[in-house]
Amino acid sequence: MGKGLTKRDVDFSSWYNELVGKADLAEHSDVRGCMIIKPYGFSIWEKMKEELDRMFKETGHQNAYFPLFIPKSYLSKEADHVDGFAKECAVVTHYRLKNSEDGGGVIVDPEAKLEEELIVRPTSETIIWNSYKKWIQSYRDLPILINQWANVVRWEMRTRLFLRTSEFLWQEGHTAHETKNEAVIETEKMLGVYADFAENFMAMPVLKGVKTENERFAGALETYCIEALMQDGKALQAGTSHFLGQNFAKAFDVTFTDSNGDQKFVWATSWGVSTRLMGALIMTHSDDLGLVLPPKLAPIHVVIVPIYKGSEQLEEVSKVANGIKDSLQQMGILVKYDNDDKRKPGWKFSEYEMKGVPLRIAIGPKDLANNTVEIARRDTREKEILALDDLPNKVSHLLEAIQLNLFQKAKDFNNEHTFQADSLEEMNDILDNKGGFVLAHWDGTKESEIKIKEKTKATIRCVQIDELKQEGKCIFSGKKSSNRVVFARAY
Amino acid sequence: MGKGLTKRDVDFSSWYNELVGKADLAEHSDVRGCMIIKPYGFSIWEKMKEELDRMFKETGHQNAYFPLFIPKSYLSKEADHVDGFAKECAVVTHYRLKNSEDGGGVIVDPEAKLEEELIVRPTSETIIWNSYKKWIQSYRDLPILINQWANVVRWEMRTRLFLRTSEFLWQEGHTAHETKNEAVIETEKMLGVYADFAENFMAMPVLKGVKTENERFAGALETYCIEALMQDGKALQAGTSHFLGQNFAKAFDVTFTDSNGDQKFVWATSWGVSTRLMGALIMTHSDDLGLVLPPKLAPIHVVIVPIYKGSEQLEEVSKVANGIKDSLQQMGILVKYDNDDKRKPGWKFSEYEMKGVPLRIAIGPKDLANNTVEIARRDTREKEILALDDLPNKVSHLLEAIQLNLFQKAKDFNNEHTFQADSLEEMNDILDNKGGFVLAHWDGTKESEIKIKEKTKATIRCVQIDELKQEGKCIFSGKKSSNRVVFARAY
Repeated sequence: MGKGLTKRDVDFSSWYNELVGKADLAEHSDVRGCMIIKPYGFSIWEKMKEELDRMFKETGHQNAYFPLFIPKSYLSKEADHVDGFAKECAVVTHYRLKNSEDGGGVIVDPEAKLEEELIVRPTSETIIWNSYKKWIQSYRDLPILINQWANVVRWEMRTRLFLRTSEFLWQEGHTAHETKNEAVIETEKMLGVYADFAENFMAMPVLKGVKTENERFAGALETYCIEALMQDGKALQAGTSHFLGQNFAKAFDVTFTDSNGDQKFVWATSWGVSTRLMGALIMTHSDDLGLVLPPKLAPIHVVIVPIYKGSEQLEEVSKVANGIKDSLQQMGILVKYDNDDKRKPGWKFSEYEMKGVPLRIAIGPKDLANNTVEIARRDTREKEILALDDLPNKVSHLLEAIQLNLFQKAKDFNNEHTFQADSLEEMNDILDNKGGFVLAHWDGTKESEIKIKEKTKATIRCVQIDELKQEGKCIFSGKKSSNRVVFARAY
Repeated sequence: MGKGLTKRDVDFSSWYNELVGKADLAEHSDVRGCMIIKPYGFSIWEKMKEELDRMFKETGHQNAYFPLFIPKSYLSKEADHVDGFAKECAVVTHYRLKNSEDGGGVIVDPEAKLEEELIVRPTSETIIWNSYKKWIQSYRDLPILINQWANVVRWEMRTRLFLRTSEFLWQEGHTAHETKNEAVIETEKMLGVYADFAENFMAMPVLKGVKTENERFAGALETYCIEALMQDGKALQAGTSHFLGQNFAKAFDVTFTDSNGDQKFVWATSWGVSTRLMGALIMTHSDDLGLVLPPKLAPIHVVIVPIYKGSEQLEEVSKVANGIKDSLQQMGILVKYDNDDKRKPGWKFSEYEMKGVPLRIAIGPKDLANNTVEIARRDTREKEILALDDLPNKVSHLLEAIQLNLFQKAKDFNNEHTFQADSLEEMNDILDNKGGFVLAHWDGTKESEIKIKEKTKATIRCVQIDELKQEGKCIFSGKKSSNRVVFARAY
């Protein structure tokens, strides 16, 4: 069964790694920390990209492209940014190779040393704000609402496919505004876009909040985030939107003349999501048989598997199957008819379960006689016999039902795994035995935050935006707290 | 006029550079040879990507993603490939920076030296075939039909926006096949896709042919190409499709068991087009007033400019303009209504001419009275007064007419600039005075090819696929030649 995935409750981490391999999503390359995203995995990422890109454009953003390389000195220009990003980076020092004199291959040409080293972008604030300086003179040039789809590199020592890789794919929005208020509105708007995408396309419920100072993006005044809960009870930061204040404008001297003729520094935001979302998608919905995909992100909605003996029966089944395929495709449903004669139906059933295809239709001789098909849902594994009559509409409704069910199931899981704790012991007990989000009082200091992390391995995931005020005492210091914040052990 | 572009016949190269800047397509970054593709330029590239991606998928290809970095030793594995590509590359030697002790910024941490240097991919054959080795065991695993959209880096000393940059964006297809014949068919099929795209979307006529051995891709047995002719009479290689034989399979030891149980090496192709196509698009159609775009690749098909005095008149014009906008959008036509009160109509006319918007509609009080609009074509600069009645269909037909006219105009230009020469003097005379493609006899040797290049600065662009055989004598050596090949001075 399930090509033998380790069960989630035995070893969640092995289950994840095996699933990513067996569902043909991605694999490690020979290059440390860099992954290969295989065609099936990439087709899911393409669906994500397409939706997000549409949402960015609908909210007035345009795409552009900035260089892969950043001069080393740029990273030093914004003080906090350099501490956060200038460390684990890929550094280009030379621009030429030559044949080795011993004939044993190529060597780096020592004469082709760069005057200033180039850093492979870990994020693009510095190179982009260096450009904005040239683009912005007057308030008429604002706002600038630009997004970039790109690869970035952060040298990671411990890597996991999709979740933490040295090279990953992402989008990074970089906007420039006249006023603080506009920039804050933009930051919050994009957090809303991410939450909308997570919940309505990925079927993944998220908490919306702001990070503590300690967990903030390097160079931001405020980092907004969406936090999701995985099936092992660990949290995953799924997207961030940063209000950068005037930090980058000051670092790169980007000013504009306002409508009164005064010179002012520009206000900035940046926001991003990455191929990490693939990891979040997998760990939110999938089961011991493999991937489970929400229909809105599935590269194939329905697979049709013929049940037959001999080529004559296959031909009869195929006639009906192809008819169904056509009628479903006319409704925009993505269908694959798998008539590969080299594989048995049982093998195909397991294969498409592993790949998370939301619906499977099986058609055999009995179905031909009765004008029916057997349809199986991947999410609930329920099967039913359906009459051919009006099948496209039934399939369409089933796909909608699956999308909603996956969200509701994940939402229920989150609710069941959201707790309150009033002491460190209580928090540890919850995290050790159940996992999940733990709402607890915290006194607002970095010292307490770090101590709590030391004692529980939990970090503050966010201070929720919509949280009601509630007085209490910090679970570490006992000092006054005005609100519970969200703790969890996290990816 | 035209924000003062240098005229093409005065200095084509300055004209090009100025146009790229003034039409807001791209600009140089502070990083040597790396460009910034600005939103308007990127939106044209996105249109190209979208069409090409659709064509690749229609021909059975899937997208995937492979690492940015290639271990240095991989490049040495295929002998010809290393000579062609292992030279001008960006080399990553370190993976960490640290704060300098004097507090003056960050320095490369000497202790974080990589054991083996990594090369930023100049092309991905080596890293991909290293993966295919793991993916291919049996003939059942073939064919593999994969494409990748990616950034690549080739350290260029002399760069020009879009045409030659150190970092550029491209797609690279990499396919694996059971038989030589299948691989050759794939190579030719993809050349056909490129020619189709060039002619029917870019409205840019191309010659299809194969490169001489001297001009072949490093590691290929045959390089097919499409060659276009720019308005200055120089040729531009717009896309290549390579039959790689078993070279990479042998270099990376990629074998498969065929249906008889025998072990065989896999056959390979690769093919690519890049942001260079943007340069080709610009230099094929544009004029002294700015960019000219074929409607199929234009981010805006129609701009509507109101002509008015005072806000009351603007309001009346806007009512009609918005109605037109809606009705055009319903037909899938991309419309911008520019009601910016800070700019005069004349400024807007020049601006959208510079940006190559195919159609401009102007609406003033007289038009309101007569139920008409003035419509101007960017390609011919013809204006006519059209009744509002049935306007969407008229606009749609005009867009089709522009697409066809641009192709025909370029085709006529190519025909008028295709010559035969029977001596070096004749070739030089043509190239010095008219430019264009020169068909001449060549004896098939590398020696003559190089000598002809020395004496004329022309290279053999291709041996045309559909050329009729014609006996003659090589213009350099006087030796027998079985056919005329295509010479040109080239980008």
